Amino acid sequence: MNEPERPAPSPTAQAENAASENAGTTDRRLLRGSRTRRAVARHAVDVASLDGLNGLSIGRLATDLGLSKSGVATLFGSKEKLQLAAVGAAREAFVDAVVRPAADAPHGADRLRALLDRWLVYASAPLFTGGCFWAANRPDFDSRPGPVHDALFSHHREWLTLLADELRHAVGAGEVPALDAELTAFQIDAVLTATNTALRVGDPDAAHRARLVVEGLLSPRG
Amino acid sequence: MNEPERPAPSPTAQAENAASENAGTTDRRLLRGSRTRRAVARHAVDVASLDGLNGLSIGRLATDLGLSKSGVATLFGSKEKLQLAAVGAAREAFVDAVVRPAADAPHGADRLRALLDRWLVYASAPLFTGGCFWAANRPDFDSRPGPVHDALFSHHREWLTLLADELRHAVGAGEVPALDAELTAFQIDAVLTATNTALRVGDPDAAHRARLVVEGLLSPRG
Repeated sequence: MNEPERPAPSPTAQAENAASENAGTTDRRLLRGSRTRRAVARHAVDVASLDGLNGLSIGRLATDLGLSKSGVATLFGSKEKLQLAAVGAAREAFVDAVVRPAADAPHGADRLRALLDRWLVYASAPLFTGGCFWAANRPDFDSRPGPVHDALFSHHREWLTLLADELRHAVGAGEVPALDAELTAFQIDAVLTATNTALRVGDPDAAHRARLVVEGLLSPRG
Repeated sequence: MNEPERPAPSPTAQAENAASENAGTTDRRLLRGSRTRRAVARHAVDVASLDGLNGLSIGRLATDLGLSKSGVATLFGSKEKLQLAAVGAAREAFVDAVVRPAADAPHGADRLRALLDRWLVYASAPLFTGGCFWAANRPDFDSRPGPVHDALFSHHREWLTLLADELRHAVGAGEVPALDAELTAFQIDAVLTATNTALRVGDPDAAHRARLVVEGLLSPRG
């Protein structure tokens, strides 16, 4: 589209434009900073999925991405803030890859199967260099209280709650037999975490076994 | 007991005695070396249960135990050999704490319940500072081929085989319904690994939930 012709600006309008241009420059800088921040955080997720959040360093990420160490340091401030940014970026990527696409399926057993399908693609493809980000990092932080621990385990509870809610839907709709939703969500998650390890070590039956277990949990017993 | 009186030694016997005393000194040195090696390896297990096998360093262990760094370096030679010694020491301590005591119970469902009881004590007490050694270290080494990976995953297979064998005994004796022993062993192990994390973060229901899941797997369905 062509821009409509505009009248010559008044002195007041000129001052306003200048202010708006300054604001524009600041916005662009913020945007650039924010884009770089996202790119660094996303790369940090890959590194941490392989070497753990403790393996992250501002210097290493800067080198990997061809950025200045001081620039990356300015964006994040501290190793802990970098770790928290990685946890946030991992959650965002996980929601995009697993939770959001599965939301096309109706609540209950169908949604659970869609979540399982998406999760298996997420871990098998894999989305992050070292496989499941939480499976890689929860064990390192389970005995280390602090904000990174809290973020990792808050996402874990969120995921368990999502599974339990869908299990309750499935029970309510009579799609699966009566079951303890929290206990079954815990079992599904435990099996997915073990499946992540099995996928990493190249076990060819890993995905099939995960499906068998989840179908066993969802099927009427007997 | 008093030693019997001995005749004065002949020159040949004197030479033999000297040789035997030298051998004794060497034996004592070897023994001291072997004891120190075990003490360092056992401490390495505690450190690695908390900070991972990658967090191990000869210098740190020497400082922790008040030994010289060069002495510890001589005993182990390399970081990888130290990691392998830790994996070996962890296996030995696990067998002593979980597998051997459970062997008092008859094969089958009783042995499985005894293994579960012992495992829960092992992880809850816990035997190692940071809880289950394998749960802490498998995720770090699942994408890192090499001797440490091989040792960790060989012990894992050994444990899964033990569980599957007892499940087959239980099925054979009619104590549990027909089931896929390998699949069920995988599920039990997945739940124990998740239980280890739950114990680390202070979840008060962790042990109870593990029992519920294992009893569910062993009980006739319906």
